[in-house]
Amino acid sequence: MKLTISKNELNEAIQHVAKAASPRPTIPILGGIKIEVTYQGITLTASDTDISIQSFVPIEHEDTVYAHVEKPGSVVLPAKFFVEIVKKLPSDQVEIEVNSQFQTQIRSGSTDIQMVGLDPEEFPVLPSISGNESFSIPGDLLKAMIRQTVLAASTNEQMAILTGVLWTLNEGNLKFVSTDRHRLASRNAVVNAPQDMRFHNVVISAKTLVELSKLVPEHHGEVEIVVADNQVLFKIDNILFFTRVLDGTYPDTSKIIPQTYKTELVLDTKKLTDAIDRAYLMSREEKTNIVRIVTLEDESIEISSSSTELGRVTEQLEVGRMSGDPLRIAFNSKYMLDVLKVIDSEQILIGFTGAMSPIVIKPTDHDHSTYIILPYRTTG
Amino acid sequence: MKLTISKNELNEAIQHVAKAASPRPTIPILGGIKIEVTYQGITLTASDTDISIQSFVPIEHEDTVYAHVEKPGSVVLPAKFFVEIVKKLPSDQVEIEVNSQFQTQIRSGSTDIQMVGLDPEEFPVLPSISGNESFSIPGDLLKAMIRQTVLAASTNEQMAILTGVLWTLNEGNLKFVSTDRHRLASRNAVVNAPQDMRFHNVVISAKTLVELSKLVPEHHGEVEIVVADNQVLFKIDNILFFTRVLDGTYPDTSKIIPQTYKTELVLDTKKLTDAIDRAYLMSREEKTNIVRIVTLEDESIEISSSSTELGRVTEQLEVGRMSGDPLRIAFNSKYMLDVLKVIDSEQILIGFTGAMSPIVIKPTDHDHSTYIILPYRTTG
Repeated sequence: MKLTISKNELNEAIQHVAKAASPRPTIPILGGIKIEVTYQGITLTASDTDISIQSFVPIEHEDTVYAHVEKPGSVVLPAKFFVEIVKKLPSDQVEIEVNSQFQTQIRSGSTDIQMVGLDPEEFPVLPSISGNESFSIPGDLLKAMIRQTVLAASTNEQMAILTGVLWTLNEGNLKFVSTDRHRLASRNAVVNAPQDMRFHNVVISAKTLVELSKLVPEHHGEVEIVVADNQVLFKIDNILFFTRVLDGTYPDTSKIIPQTYKTELVLDTKKLTDAIDRAYLMSREEKTNIVRIVTLEDESIEISSSSTELGRVTEQLEVGRMSGDPLRIAFNSKYMLDVLKVIDSEQILIGFTGAMSPIVIKPTDHDHSTYIILPYRTTG
Repeated sequence: MKLTISKNELNEAIQHVAKAASPRPTIPILGGIKIEVTYQGITLTASDTDISIQSFVPIEHEDTVYAHVEKPGSVVLPAKFFVEIVKKLPSDQVEIEVNSQFQTQIRSGSTDIQMVGLDPEEFPVLPSISGNESFSIPGDLLKAMIRQTVLAASTNEQMAILTGVLWTLNEGNLKFVSTDRHRLASRNAVVNAPQDMRFHNVVISAKTLVELSKLVPEHHGEVEIVVADNQVLFKIDNILFFTRVLDGTYPDTSKIIPQTYKTELVLDTKKLTDAIDRAYLMSREEKTNIVRIVTLEDESIEISSSSTELGRVTEQLEVGRMSGDPLRIAFNSKYMLDVLKVIDSEQILIGFTGAMSPIVIKPTDHDHSTYIILPYRTTG
């Protein structure tokens, strides 16, 4: 294998795949990046077996030449050092040459690097999921749906299935649901899917979705998504992102969401966020994060929290609209803040069905998002 | 005590002093910020007994009114919550009222906060060091001198005195020296001091100097410095920064610095930094960070490092000027990088007196900085 490649293109492709390389690999090959060179271009792959990322650099694109291939071939190089050294090479051009023992020489300017390469035959094989149906979704929408649901996924590895986000597709409607049993986030959107394409119980790790989200550039076009039995593939331009789906059956959450409310409040999102944030600062001192909302006579609410050692915060907030019964409720302010921070709408509706029943939070300008947090049982 | 104060001024003053409040105080009062209100202004103080910071907000400044005092008084409030809540208050104005039991009420917009205050009589008294002589130094120069010396101070708390930077003043020449026994940094400058003012063995914690440095704004005027027996006071506009000096006698380092060299190299600082940085990446894999420099025949040097598992990096670098004996030397590349990163000059001189003797590094355009690193004894 022998080629010359533009440092910037190589570096960008390496940065994309590097996240899938295992930082503490059980076997050295899983801590590597596979480089495959053909006369069409250079394919980089990293895989920790849970996720795999592949990035392709074509020989040329729109009249710009990115690489010159003298001899095709492949090698696996240790990711950590390779990722950092390429970034710091002195010249715009990088020459890579690999001999039959996978001994690799990298030259750039007056820098000469010898690396011990590994046999690419030992590298994990990527899942083969061609032949499966695919759908597509605008990149920004995918990023928004991920941001607006991962917050409610569990971080407790003991409840493995709840560390994921449940995906379902039905009649072109893609829906994400996450819950850690204390709160729930749900988001749906219409996507470009074949009429008869449907799936349910596809659960993808929330952490993995956050990593995927970082790979999708802002204002990017459509992301193509292929769902197979136990793998999902995302195609973002020249990047392929494979992830395993989580094993197990996601709990049925469809009956948890109250459909009618005894009390309804419409509030300014920003003002409510700021007020709860201040009350949170005090409530945080008592590990419970308890904040209380009480409806007042004059179309306003009182938000309060207290700490035995520190004192008390009381806020009065005007309500855009209030209907139903008077209310006194206590909840985890951190959970409420997590929700308020991902709602992009100016106003929200909060629905209550009593001091012991789930609190529903929704934007007022569309019906695609629903959040639930369970209240605290408190006295007083 | 009762006053109204501009949120921004109060917030800025709090941020300045907050660093001196103990994050995990042994007694609650050390985790507090003392607020003293007079008809002249508001004084905030925090102290963990090692360092103390005081910031003053005048009632008005250049026709802008910052505060309105209804009743003077003082109180101590828990720093952590106070620091964060003031930043987040909704209105530009903050009203603070304290009753005789130090119960404190903070009002801003529709936010009402009750805080449990502490008795200011229990707060540590600041050192009294008036009457001592002072000198002054431009803020940017002080920041540069700190940045260019703290790197060589020890981080090993077992060698307490070496965790500090040694200050001496003699005939208007201020000198900073730091060493951890493997390397040494020395920086001096002429300052505005009374003719007969002199001191030696004033050792100030490197960590404290870094904190002090952050308090000095860029392009700030003169910082006034008062040196007393076991305290140093820095005056930065309306901020007073007190620090204890470290106990013990700083070792004599005057005879360590070689005055003549057997080999001299003049090199481009940026190019050398980049080359050593690449070699460092490889050397880091072997915990020792060993990088070698060998002089070549053709007015150039070879910089190299190797790792048994990863491979080898070799760099060739042109030398601006080379004189004396051929050389082969090994050193800790991390130490060398630490030095190169704080040298602001385009070219540096490296002086060697043999493979086992201290390596001297100096900028070529002035004689105010000297760095030393000890080489490694290696075979081959």
